[in-house]
Formats: sequence, C-alpha cells, structure tokens
Amino acid sequence: MSGPRIRLGVAGLGRAFMLMLPTLARDPRVAMVAAADPRPEARARFESDFGARSYAEVEALCADPALDAVYVASPHQFHLAHVRAAAAAGKHVLVEKPMALSVADGLAMVEAAQAAGVHLVVGHSHSFDAPYRRAQEMIQAGEFGAVRMITALNFTDYLYRPRRPEELDTAQGGGAIFSQAPHQVEVARLLAGRPARSIRAVATVWDRARGTEGAYNALLDFGEGLSATLTYNGHGHFDTDEFQDWIGEMGTPRDAAAYGTARAALRGVAPGEEAALKERRAYGRGAGAEEARRAPPPPAYNHFGLVIASLERADLRPTPRGVMVYADDERRFEPLPPPDVPRAEVIDELHAAILGGVPPLHDGAWGLATAEICLALLESARTGAEVALRHQGAA
Amino acid sequence: MSGPRIRLGVAGLGRAFMLMLPTLARDPRVAMVAAADPRPEARARFESDFGARSYAEVEALCADPALDAVYVASPHQFHLAHVRAAAAAGKHVLVEKPMALSVADGLAMVEAAQAAGVHLVVGHSHSFDAPYRRAQEMIQAGEFGAVRMITALNFTDYLYRPRRPEELDTAQGGGAIFSQAPHQVEVARLLAGRPARSIRAVATVWDRARGTEGAYNALLDFGEGLSATLTYNGHGHFDTDEFQDWIGEMGTPRDAAAYGTARAALRGVAPGEEAALKERRAYGRGAGAEEARRAPPPPAYNHFGLVIASLERADLRPTPRGVMVYADDERRFEPLPPPDVPRAEVIDELHAAILGGVPPLHDGAWGLATAEICLALLESARTGAEVALRHQGAA
Repeated sequence: MSGPRIRLGVAGLGRAFMLMLPTLARDPRVAMVAAADPRPEARARFESDFGARSYAEVEALCADPALDAVYVASPHQFHLAHVRAAAAAGKHVLVEKPMALSVADGLAMVEAAQAAGVHLVVGHSHSFDAPYRRAQEMIQAGEFGAVRMITALNFTDYLYRPRRPEELDTAQGGGAIFSQAPHQVEVARLLAGRPARSIRAVATVWDRARGTEGAYNALLDFGEGLSATLTYNGHGHFDTDEFQDWIGEMGTPRDAAAYGTARAALRGVAPGEEAALKERRAYGRGAGAEEARRAPPPPAYNHFGLVIASLERADLRPTPRGVMVYADDERRFEPLPPPDVPRAEVIDELHAAILGGVPPLHDGAWGLATAEICLALLESARTGAEVALRHQGAA
Repeated sequence: MSGPRIRLGVAGLGRAFMLMLPTLARDPRVAMVAAADPRPEARARFESDFGARSYAEVEALCADPALDAVYVASPHQFHLAHVRAAAAAGKHVLVEKPMALSVADGLAMVEAAQAAGVHLVVGHSHSFDAPYRRAQEMIQAGEFGAVRMITALNFTDYLYRPRRPEELDTAQGGGAIFSQAPHQVEVARLLAGRPARSIRAVATVWDRARGTEGAYNALLDFGEGLSATLTYNGHGHFDTDEFQDWIGEMGTPRDAAAYGTARAALRGVAPGEEAALKERRAYGRGAGAEEARRAPPPPAYNHFGLVIASLERADLRPTPRGVMVYADDERRFEPLPPPDVPRAEVIDELHAAILGGVPPLHDGAWGLATAEICLALLESARTGAEVALRHQGAA
C-alpha cells in the first residue's frame, strides 16, 4: 500500500489508545507522528514504538506542524478542551466516545470544528464495525422493505474489569451508560436510518461496591412504529458471546469453558489497589506496538452483542463474520472477508474525510446525537419519565 | 394414580382445546365429563374420545350436575358470558387467555366468581411452565439477591399460521398483542414478583395482508429500578428456538433445517380458503384424544422464547429442560425431570384449588392484571405515551 498517509498525533496514551493500538500500529494509511501524555514511561514507549515525538502537554502536541489530525483519547472530562485545542490549531480530530458528558459540550465541539474548517470524527464505536455497516447497506438497498424494529441485547462482564475510581462514578462519566450505551445506541441509530424521537429507560446501581449503573433497559422510539430495545447487563453472569460462537467483542475467540474470570480476578485485588492494577497494564508497562504488529489479524470483526434488525420481509442479524439473512423464503449467511487490521473501518472513514474530502458518517452531529440519547437514557432512568430528543438531525 | 378427579366440562372444542388435548387426554387427575360446541362433528368426536356427553349450548353444559368445573375455551368474545354461566351454575372455571378484551370484562369475571364462591383460574399461559416456576422459586429463595431486570425475546412464525378472519382483527381480539403478549407479560410478572406500574410500547401493522400487529417492543416498569423488556416478532424470519436447542414452544424437537414453512404453506392457500384450511385441522376432523394418548411424552417443557432474569448475584435463564444458573462463581444447569404429561402444571393448580382448597396463583385478579397490561401495551402503541397501570394488585 502506498499513497498519502494521515499524519496522526495522539492526545492521551490510556485505555482507549490501547484498544486502538492494534489498528494504529498496523494500518499502513496512518503515520504515527507524535503523542502527548503526562506519564513519562508512556511517552518513552511511544517514541520507541513509532520513532515519533512526544509531549507532556496536549497543547504542545496540537502545535506540532507535522500533524494532519489529532486523536483525542484523553479521559472524558478533557475531551472538550482537547478538541478545541486541536481544531484551533487547524488539525482534524478523531475524538473517542463518549464524545461529551453534556449536550452543551458536544455542541461546543461541533462549533469548534466548524469554525476551524476541520473534520470531527467520533469513535471508535461499534457502529463502525463492518457487519453492522453491511446490514445498513442491505437495509438501504430496499430489497426487504422498511426496517420496523431493532433488538439489541448485550450481556458482558464490563462492571468487573479493573477500573479507576472515576470510571465507577456516573457523575464523572463512569458506568455503563456513558461507556457502553454509546455503542448500542449507535448501532441502533445506524440500522434505523432516521432520527430518534424519544427514549424511556430504567437503570439503577445494582452493586453498591461498584457504585455506578452497570445495566440498563431502554426503549428508543424512532416514530412511525419503528423502535429499538436496548438491553445491557455488564454484571458478569450470562454472556451474549454465547450467541456469537464465542467470538468476543474484539473479534477474537474466547474460551467457552472459562467463567467468572473478571470477578474472580478482581476479588484477589486488595482494597485501594484496583486502580494500580489497571495502571500496571497501561501503555508503557506491558505490551506495545511491537506485539500489536506481530499478532495475527483477528479472525472476525468487533461486535457488540446480539443485534437483530427486523424488516418487513427479513430479519438481519449481524455477526462477527458477516450478516445472517432470515428472509421470507430462505435463510442465508453473507460472509465478509476477514479483517486485515482490526477496526480498520475507523481509518477508512478518517482517511476518506481528511485525504478524500468525503464527509464522515460519524461526524460531530452524529456523536452529539448519540451523546444526547445517552444523557436522556440516564435522565429517564432517574425521573421515570420519557425524554424527548432534540439534537437528532433532520428527519 | 387414584384419588379424586376433577370432573371437567369443556366450553368450546376449538384451537385452545386442541392445544390442551394432550393434557386433558392424559392427565389421570381429570375426568372428561362433557363438552359444548356448535359443531356436531366435534361433539361426536368428543363423545367417542371420552365416553362423555355433549351439548350444542354452553348454558346446557353449565347446568350439567356432574361437573366440578368448566374449561372456557370458546372464542375470546364469549369468555365473559361463558364464565358467568359457569359461575352462576356453581362450577369452578378455567378460562383461556386472553381472559378478556377489556378491563371491565375481566373485572366482571372476577366478580362473578367471587359472588358464586368458585375458583377462577386463567390459563394455560406459559407462566405455568415448570422452568419459569422453578426460576421463580430460586428468586424467592433469595440466594442470589433481588431481581433487577427481566429480558424476554421471542421470534416466531405466529402471524403466518392459518387464521380465521377475526384472529387477524385486533378490534376482535386478534393479533400478537392479545394472543402472544399475555405469555410474555405473565412470565415477566411471575419473575418480577411485584406489581407493574406502567408500560411503554411500540407496535404497528407491518404486513397489511395480515392486518394486525404481529410484533411489539415494550418496556414494563415495576418501579424501584426493576423493569422488563418484552420483544416479540411473529413475522416468521429469525426464530429464537435457535437459542433453545431447537425445542419448540410445545416442548418438542423441531427440524433446524426447515425454514419458512409457515409462510410457504400459507402461500399455497387460495384467497378466502385460509379459514377453511384451519377448519380442516379442527377437532373432529383430524387427530383426537386417541392420538394424544398414544404420543410419547414430550421430551421437554413448553416455553416462550429467550427469558433471562437478572438478579444481583446471578442471571437465571429458564430453558425447556430446566434453569441455567449463571452465578458469581459458577455456571450450572439445574435440570427438571422431563414432563409425564404436557402442561400438567395447569392441572396441578386447578386440582389443588378445587380439591385441595389451595388458592391458585393464576386466579382472576392475576388474569385481570395481565389483560390490563396487554390493553395498555396496545394503548401505548397507539398514543405513543406511557400508560399507568391500576389493576396490578397490592405492592
């Protein structure tokens, strides 16, 4: 592969970056030019991993003239400041989900990007994953009539993975509604293909020791009889990967015989040591880009649990390897070629926007719509009332 | 088995009776004494199947002094008149679901039974099925903490089975919301263990040729953070029996390779001939009690799709053969002994009530609460607003 590359800077070498590392280390369309992080060991590793520069401050990173774009992967509360800094410096922006913890912050990001004339892409979320995009194409092709109902169900061990304290504090953007709901909301929005009107949801803290919502039930109404049920349970019991041939969220096989491993591992951690445990797995301590480059490509795509789009003349069920089509007269599997690079779909969109001028699907307005729904989900759970949505774009 | 038997009369030898025939023909605790039906061929078959009497009119059946109880299995619109007739004659009543098509009718049935001092049992519904009852016992035992969320998902070919015209007319009690939602609502209520407060739902007619709702999405709120999502799609594409080892709703194995059979069979039917097709399979035309007695016991219990009760320290997943327990530290299957007689749970409850004086779980108030929720589901789908519930019993 030759051709122009995106010269990328990374703001924040934390967990989000680690999850994108297999993509960034392997996709030939990206040149890793610089990064910013407060941790010296992370900066040193980045320099050696990529032969690149590093900065202690995001502002300095954004001033680097060699960058086309900045990947804002800092903790949620810094997203607005970092998006503004990058846009003000004329850099295109890829900002992690959740884009913002308030509609006002999301709007401010959209405005900052517009004022600077740069692209703002929000992700990775699982609505980038190729099988969902393939299902969307099949819906848009119209062969099976209108989409009528979306069913999304995901049971994971999310709540018992090692966390920093703020990740367990909803007020600081922690918990399943900020971290996990954006995926499910975006997959539903992608398949619905039109603006959501309102949401009614139920969610509470089940486990006081974790202090945040790890589960929710939500009914998202798109009007004219189209709705989505979004069910998420991150308490580590039943696991919907059982319905995905034990392919995990990242597209790699899981051991079907293993059970309860997240909770068991956490139980062995002394009080107050959980954040330190997470820190020990941070970038710069453990595996880096070299391991990511050496790893074989994942056998399947990322996914976010059981998803079924019900159309007038078919149900479409995206799986980690393609799309199951349950039509009127036949049931067939439409396979996708296995991914060369995990989450390459994010680079597809970023590359097309920055170097091809193609407006991204996952732009600021898209991310704002998702953020509004997640905030409304939380509000509905707290008030017990339905919440109307106002930032979903044109119908 | 010896001991006293329920001397039963059947009001209506239609489809509901056919589905209960394997139970009624085989359970030794039931003596089939009489039946009423307008069709002479059904009455003749009943007489020969059971060595029993028959009547053309339900009123005459109810006057039969040899009966302890009447099974009201007539079309929905006759339920109230037939329950009243049976109660007025001092007979206990088993009335099919949906109990009533209005709250007023349901209340009138409850009052009629109370005034007469007879038991009113509503069913069969799948909330009788032993695996759901076993899960309920496990919840009540308290080992896994409070129940927090219920997930119910059922995809079937309901809408494309042969129907009489009124079964495709919602105003006459047709469609998935009257016929199928009672099962899912009752399973959710059983596992929730407390009164529902409100429901928000979305449902429309997807297939104009069938003219009634064949699918719905609903969020049932039980308060204090406990909710149930109820998702049903009867349009004959994806089938949740895939998640039940291809054991069908009646507890018998299905051919996993067969696909789209209901729609294909219906396509071969000439316009106007559908009701006649259904009629050809009616009681008195095809198989009867002798075939039901000769059939081997079903290998598994009845079920109504994927159901997961999420508790603080476990997910419980009833299956056709038992309950999968996904606890904090272990995943185990709690098998139930295979059924001797299908749906024997209905006779358990009826027998205990009539001959043992044990108040039934599925009494008139129970059935009324379910009917109210189904009517509210329809109302919410039509208005787009949440509907508060008022007939759910004491909290």
